[in-house]
Amino acid sequence: MRILTQSNDPELQLRRGLPFEEVVQIEKGDCCNVEEPPVKINSGFDVAGGIENCMWLSSSNSYSSVLRRQHFLIRSLGASFPLQTCHNQMERIHCASVSIPEADAEGVIRKITPVLDPSRHKGQAGRIAVIGGCREYTGAPYFTAISALKIGADLSHVFCTKDAATVIKSYSPELIVHPILEESYSVREDERETVSSYILAEIKKWLERFDCIVVGPGLGRDPFLLNCVSDIMRHARQLSIPIVVDADGLYLVTNNIDLVRGNSLAVLTPNVMEYKRLLEKVLNCDVSNDNQSEQLRLLSQKIGGVTILRKGKEDLISDAKTVTKVSTFGSPRRCGGQGDILCGSVAVFTSWARRYVMSGIPSSETSLNPLILGCVAGSVLLRKAASGAFLSKKRATLTTDIIEFLGQSLEEICPAK
Amino acid sequence: MRILTQSNDPELQLRRGLPFEEVVQIEKGDCCNVEEPPVKINSGFDVAGGIENCMWLSSSNSYSSVLRRQHFLIRSLGASFPLQTCHNQMERIHCASVSIPEADAEGVIRKITPVLDPSRHKGQAGRIAVIGGCREYTGAPYFTAISALKIGADLSHVFCTKDAATVIKSYSPELIVHPILEESYSVREDERETVSSYILAEIKKWLERFDCIVVGPGLGRDPFLLNCVSDIMRHARQLSIPIVVDADGLYLVTNNIDLVRGNSLAVLTPNVMEYKRLLEKVLNCDVSNDNQSEQLRLLSQKIGGVTILRKGKEDLISDAKTVTKVSTFGSPRRCGGQGDILCGSVAVFTSWARRYVMSGIPSSETSLNPLILGCVAGSVLLRKAASGAFLSKKRATLTTDIIEFLGQSLEEICPAK
Repeated sequence: MRILTQSNDPELQLRRGLPFEEVVQIEKGDCCNVEEPPVKINSGFDVAGGIENCMWLSSSNSYSSVLRRQHFLIRSLGASFPLQTCHNQMERIHCASVSIPEADAEGVIRKITPVLDPSRHKGQAGRIAVIGGCREYTGAPYFTAISALKIGADLSHVFCTKDAATVIKSYSPELIVHPILEESYSVREDERETVSSYILAEIKKWLERFDCIVVGPGLGRDPFLLNCVSDIMRHARQLSIPIVVDADGLYLVTNNIDLVRGNSLAVLTPNVMEYKRLLEKVLNCDVSNDNQSEQLRLLSQKIGGVTILRKGKEDLISDAKTVTKVSTFGSPRRCGGQGDILCGSVAVFTSWARRYVMSGIPSSETSLNPLILGCVAGSVLLRKAASGAFLSKKRATLTTDIIEFLGQSLEEICPAK
Repeated sequence: MRILTQSNDPELQLRRGLPFEEVVQIEKGDCCNVEEPPVKINSGFDVAGGIENCMWLSSSNSYSSVLRRQHFLIRSLGASFPLQTCHNQMERIHCASVSIPEADAEGVIRKITPVLDPSRHKGQAGRIAVIGGCREYTGAPYFTAISALKIGADLSHVFCTKDAATVIKSYSPELIVHPILEESYSVREDERETVSSYILAEIKKWLERFDCIVVGPGLGRDPFLLNCVSDIMRHARQLSIPIVVDADGLYLVTNNIDLVRGNSLAVLTPNVMEYKRLLEKVLNCDVSNDNQSEQLRLLSQKIGGVTILRKGKEDLISDAKTVTKVSTFGSPRRCGGQGDILCGSVAVFTSWARRYVMSGIPSSETSLNPLILGCVAGSVLLRKAASGAFLSKKRATLTTDIIEFLGQSLEEICPAK
């Protein structure tokens, strides 16, 4: 295994215009056959026989016995050895490159999306909050919050700095924007503790109302602000509120893994570079293209089973027990902001999936992880919306155009009655 | 009658994902037959014989003799006993559950909507003001004010805080936005009296020009601001200007019922939770699903005959004398902001209904309460617009989309010539 990159800073190379493949491409080793006895692992499924029943696996996927065996094998390997350094583990599984099963993502959406019932009240289809938006960034939290509404959440809040609030409010009257965060420049050293307590107290008034919060879009990297957000994340965890962490939230988490370690209600949604930094920090290794599935599973396992949606040409999703992917083609356009849509989408679908899983579903599905379902659903909806927008706008496609296709895309998958 | 809820805070239970029905469901008692002699009550109608002539009752509704008797009975009961505690009253009427007559809401709109006469001048089709909009909330007063214009008012003003004004102005150049309210954080303790007097003086310059004011959308709950708004409400009452109270205005009124007590020109538009709080405060009881009609009538009576529009799957409307409903199907989407449209809509139609009632209508209709007409018209128009928007946008329907359907919906009911 030889890394072809000439630099220790792939981000720099990316910025210099090299395609990502040249930066992180890994020389492929030959696969060898490894035989393992069948082992029942704690994945929530009867792996050997029951995986076809998993609602998030595509029924159209020709899930051959070979693939099934490979899938079983890689998970058995993962489950059978204790956590070690990444390099040792990766050596052991180096040859176990397998196809990652495709999720039946549209089927997931159809299952978890709640029926629109006229007897329901405002808020019952979901209350989402975005923690993000500072002097520098205002578009990202807007994209996340408005996407949540366009998918079908009833209420969408943004908690941001005062500077950002006026701008985010002006983007749309549909959002409820709370100007309560502060950056270092606006708080004197001797006031910081008081201001920090005030911010947490203000957010506590709201927090338990939310079905899911998104931490990160447009958050910035101001140390005082990030400290406050860490407090908010700890409080949300105490309240058992699902948290989707993206963008600068991932920067915060990568430098303080304990903020999410062992939180089964946390979703991380890293892009290529954010994933690379997470791997370096947590597993002390580089990205492996041969063993993407197992590496992702190990990363999730090492952080105590948080759900990770690794964004890319294919979105890979794992909660340390299972690995699945969504590879529906979206759009070749890579305008900034699509990740913001995705985390808003994952937040809504996760809150719906939690209600679905907690209420009267068939017993065969009781072990489903709602965060995996939320990721699968969010991923495919963004891809379909991006595809629709691109067909219409081609090179001029912007994030706003994709957001306008969210409703139609959802309607095509799961018509509202 | 036994309340099944396990918690003192149904909103919290709703947030935890319990369906609303589990929260406020009330065990139904058997209905018994109660015979009462015919009594002429001060309802503005000859109840026994004249109710079919009521312009807001649906002509398509098969108003059978049984229903008529029930309607008569419940109003007779209400008129025949003095005000007592809610529990005593509810015991007496427990078995008198009746069907609430459906309003001929579209007929009402056709009657009260003024003909567009080219000889009229700016302002003659209605001047509406919204008192609301603070640092935290800006969307709600915008929705109310722009809805008033879209329905046909000539001028729509917003009185809000300085922070909110810039944002609300940015939503639309159509609104006249006055940045004159203040929140506690921006006023020193020793300035409060002066600032309060200044605010009232500024608003007094404008107030008598308005045909109706809406108090509450996006008002917030700052004590200093609410004190100023209380002064504004008292002054509007002295000027006999109709007031529609919604959202945080209802929070203010619920804690200070005297602000509206006995004001026959006040409309309250509570949603499920606001209605529950009003009932607890005024009648010291919980919501009864068996006796919705009589409970609403009693609540209105106890507040001295204010008109109440209880929002829900069916909108119930009472002024202590009559109870009617609008149940035209709207949309199953419960995105936040629809209540803001409704109160703007009720404000416009109330001002039109007052002109209609006060000017040369058939003598049989002289006792019509224009506030009831305004509520009936506002309710059905929102429902039709929401229905149109939902057909077009499905789950992605937002409040802005519904507002865009107000004009078309009104045109379908009552074409402009």
